[in-house]
Amino acid sequence: MSNSPSTSAGNAITLRVKLPQTPNSLSKVTIAIGEKGGDIGAIDIIRVDKNHIVRDFTINTHGDEHGENIQEAIEALDGFEVLQFSDRTFLMHLGGKIEVKSKSPLKTRDELSMAYTPGVARVCQAIHRDPAKSWSLTIKRNTVAIVSDGTAVLGLGNIGPEAAMPVMEGKAMLFKEFGHVDAFPICLNTTDPSEIVSIVKALSPTFGGVNLEDIAAPNCFEIERRLKKETDIPIFHDDQHGTAVVMTGALINALKIVNKKAENLKVVVSGVGAAGTACSLMMRDLGITNIIGVDRKGIVHGGRDDLNSEKRAYVDISNPENIKGTIHDAMVGADLFVGLSAPGVIDVDDLKKMNSDPIVFAMANPTPEIMPEIASPHVAVMATGRSDYPNQINNVLCFPGLFRGALDCQATDINEAMKMAAARAIADVIDDDSLFPDYIVPSVFDRTVAPAVTHAVIEAAIQTGVAKRVPGNFHN
Amino acid sequence: MSNSPSTSAGNAITLRVKLPQTPNSLSKVTIAIGEKGGDIGAIDIIRVDKNHIVRDFTINTHGDEHGENIQEAIEALDGFEVLQFSDRTFLMHLGGKIEVKSKSPLKTRDELSMAYTPGVARVCQAIHRDPAKSWSLTIKRNTVAIVSDGTAVLGLGNIGPEAAMPVMEGKAMLFKEFGHVDAFPICLNTTDPSEIVSIVKALSPTFGGVNLEDIAAPNCFEIERRLKKETDIPIFHDDQHGTAVVMTGALINALKIVNKKAENLKVVVSGVGAAGTACSLMMRDLGITNIIGVDRKGIVHGGRDDLNSEKRAYVDISNPENIKGTIHDAMVGADLFVGLSAPGVIDVDDLKKMNSDPIVFAMANPTPEIMPEIASPHVAVMATGRSDYPNQINNVLCFPGLFRGALDCQATDINEAMKMAAARAIADVIDDDSLFPDYIVPSVFDRTVAPAVTHAVIEAAIQTGVAKRVPGNFHN
Repeated sequence: MSNSPSTSAGNAITLRVKLPQTPNSLSKVTIAIGEKGGDIGAIDIIRVDKNHIVRDFTINTHGDEHGENIQEAIEALDGFEVLQFSDRTFLMHLGGKIEVKSKSPLKTRDELSMAYTPGVARVCQAIHRDPAKSWSLTIKRNTVAIVSDGTAVLGLGNIGPEAAMPVMEGKAMLFKEFGHVDAFPICLNTTDPSEIVSIVKALSPTFGGVNLEDIAAPNCFEIERRLKKETDIPIFHDDQHGTAVVMTGALINALKIVNKKAENLKVVVSGVGAAGTACSLMMRDLGITNIIGVDRKGIVHGGRDDLNSEKRAYVDISNPENIKGTIHDAMVGADLFVGLSAPGVIDVDDLKKMNSDPIVFAMANPTPEIMPEIASPHVAVMATGRSDYPNQINNVLCFPGLFRGALDCQATDINEAMKMAAARAIADVIDDDSLFPDYIVPSVFDRTVAPAVTHAVIEAAIQTGVAKRVPGNFHN
Repeated sequence: MSNSPSTSAGNAITLRVKLPQTPNSLSKVTIAIGEKGGDIGAIDIIRVDKNHIVRDFTINTHGDEHGENIQEAIEALDGFEVLQFSDRTFLMHLGGKIEVKSKSPLKTRDELSMAYTPGVARVCQAIHRDPAKSWSLTIKRNTVAIVSDGTAVLGLGNIGPEAAMPVMEGKAMLFKEFGHVDAFPICLNTTDPSEIVSIVKALSPTFGGVNLEDIAAPNCFEIERRLKKETDIPIFHDDQHGTAVVMTGALINALKIVNKKAENLKVVVSGVGAAGTACSLMMRDLGITNIIGVDRKGIVHGGRDDLNSEKRAYVDISNPENIKGTIHDAMVGADLFVGLSAPGVIDVDDLKKMNSDPIVFAMANPTPEIMPEIASPHVAVMATGRSDYPNQINNVLCFPGLFRGALDCQATDINEAMKMAAARAIADVIDDDSLFPDYIVPSVFDRTVAPAVTHAVIEAAIQTGVAKRVPGNFHN
C-alpha cells in the first residue's frame, strides 16, 4: 500500500455491520476492510441476538470513495449487512462545534437578580461612568472575534462565509484549548473592504481583539491596515502574521543547526501573497537582506509592469541585486527556500543548485512545493505545513498564546516586537540539546508553547508601550 | 423596617470580618447587621487562630449606601475589623458571565484533524456545494445574535454599547438556561439605523436568528421592519414583542378571572413607545377594538400636531371614539390599564373611575405606575414587571422558548401567528383550576413554560408556511 495516499482520522467512517453468529465472522469483516486498505481504529458491540451480532467498525480512510469501497466490500460478503454508514468528521460537525455557556448557575431567584435585573443595572452604571471597566466587568477581556469573509479559506479559495464557518469554529476551539481565550466566529456576508472595516469597528465594544482569517489578498492588507489605525484593540491577520511568526521561529532554530547567520542568507520566497509578504518582512526584522520573491510569472523585480501595488511595495524590500528570471534561476546559491505557493514548483535539480546545507520550508497545503521524501536527501533541514511529517509549521503554535498575552496586558496593538518575541519564544521551547534537523518546531500539542508565547508577548508589549496594564501574575 | 426599601440579592455584599475569640462575638456582629436592616444569607468560617476567627458574612442590602452603613456598624464594634468588602453582583461579573466552549474534546491529533485541518475541508466543501447545509453542519442552527446599540438599556436609557454588555450577557445566560439556545451578545458602536441593518445583514451567515434588544424608539421600528424584509432569518425585537406576548398571555388569563370578553373591553395604554405599540397590536389581534393610548402630553388622537410618524400610525389603530384629554380622562370606564411608562402616572382615584372588576398591568420598571399595595384593594387583577410581587410579566417567559421553536423549524420569520401562539401557550401553562387573581402568569422558573412555547411556535410556523422543516421530535 506504500503508493496509496495515507489514511487519516479526518476521513474516518463508522460502519454499523450486522454479522451472522458463525465462526470467523468477525475476521471476515476485518480481512475485507484490510484488503481495501482501511485502517481499523475501534470495534464496538452494539447488540447481540441468537443469530446475529451488530458491531460498529471505526475505520480511517483516505477519502469519500475509499469509504464507499470498504462498505461495498463488506456488503459483498454472504450474510453480512451494513446497517449504517457514518462519516465521523461530519458527525462531529452536526449542530456546530462550539457553544455559549454561562460561567455561573442561574437556577434561583437570587442568581437571576445578580446576573440580570435588577442587580445588573448597577454594573451597567459602573461601566457607563467609566467605560474602561468594560475590560473587567464584561467578556471583552477574554473574547476575540474571528472575522472572515470566506474569500480565501484553507486551500479551497473563495467558498463564501457560510462554508467558512466550520474553519472558524475549529479555530475557536483551538483558541480555547491552547489559550483559554473565548473566540467567536463572525463570518460576513460582504467582501467589501470598507464595509468589513466599518463592521469590525462597530463590533469593537464587545471584543478585546480581532483575529482576521482567510480573507484574500489584497483586501486583507487594506482591512488590517485600516483597523489597526482606527480601533484601539489588537488586530491580527493570522494568515499573514501567524504563519510568519511560526516560520520565523522555525528559521531561528534551523539557522542554529546549519550554523549560518541571518545577514548572510540568500532566501527565495515562492508565493508573494499575504503570507509570503509577512514572512519576508519578519525575515528582514531578523536581519536577512537578500530575499527574492517569486510569483506565478517569475521573479518579482522592479522592471515588471504587471505588479499590483502590494507587489510594487514588495520590490522595495526584496531582490537587492534586481535579478530576473524564473524560480529555477532564483534558486541558484539560495540558503533557504520558503514556499507558500503550490505543489511542484521546485524539484530536486533546484535543491542541487542551492548553497551548502540548504533549508527548505515547503508550506503549501495540503501538498507541499516539494515532498519531504523527495527533498530530504538533498537538504539539511526540511519543514512543511503537514502534521504527518516532522517540523510542522502550524499557526496554532502562535495565535492562542499571542492573543492570551495581548488580552492579559490589554494591548492596544500587536506590533512587530510582539510578533518577534512570539517567534523567539516558540524557537526557545526547544533547547539546544534537543535541537535536531527533524525537531526545530515544537509539537502543536506541546503545552509549554502557549504560556511561553504569552509571557514573551506581554514583555514585548510592556517594553514597546502598547500594554495598558501589567497582569497581576506577570513576572519579568 | 416596613417602610424601608426591600433588600435583594442583586445588592448582596460579602464582608470578611476578623472577630475576637470572645463569648458572643458572633452575635455582636449579627446584631449590628440586623440593627442596620441587613439580611444575612450565609456565614462561613475562613480561618481560625488562638485569638481570632475570620468569617465571611453574606448580606442582602438595599443598595450601595446601605452596604457601607453595615460595614461602618461592624467597624464601630471594639476589637472587630472588616478585612474585605465585596459586592457579590460585581464579583459575579468579573471577566464576564459567559464563555465559548468546545462541544467535543481537542486533545489528540485525530480530534484535531476532524475538527480542523484537514478533515474540516470536506465539511466546508459540502456547505459550499449546498449552503442550506450550514443549518446542520455549523452553529447556525442553535445560535442567536443579541444585538443592541445601547440606546435604551433597562430603565437606564442611552448608556452606550459597552455599558449595555452586562445586560446582553445576562440575556445570553437566560437563552441557554431556559431555551438551550446559544446566544452571543453583539453590542454595536453605532446608532445609525441603516448601518445597524447593514451590519446585521452581513452577520447573518453566522446566526440562525437575531434578538434585537434595548434599541430606542423610533429607530427600533425601522431596523426591525427592514431586517424582517431583507434577511431570511427570524428577527425579533424583544422589548416590543416579548413584552407584548407575555402581557397578552397574562391578559388571556385575567379575562377568564373577571369573565369578560376581549371585544367588549376598554383599554388604556400608558406609554406609546416600542412596547406600548406592540402590546396594542397584539390586543387588537385578540379582538380588542377600544384601545386608548396616552403619552406624556395626554391622550393620543388625530387632532394632535405633535405626533411622530409612529404615533400617527398609532392613531389609525386606536381611540375609535377620538376622545381627548389627560390620562385621568381616559381612565373613566376602562376595564384594563396597561402601563409601560413611568411611576405614579395613575392614582387610586383613577382606579375608582374604572369599570367593575378592573385589571391593572403596571409594568414600569423598577417602580410601577401604581404600587400593588396601593392598587390591590381597588382592582380584580394586578400584575407588574417585578419579581417581588405576584404576576410578574417577564419577557423570559417568551424569548427562550420562542427562539428555540423558530430555530428548530428553521423559521424564516417570527410572525403574528407565532407570537399569539406563544402568548396562548404561556396562558395555558396555568390550568383553570389553578387560576387565581394572584396567579395568572407562570413563574420564570417554571420549566414547563419554554417547551410549551416552543411547541406552539413550531405549530404556528408550520401552519403559516414560514417553517423550512418539521423537527424530527415534533408531534402535533
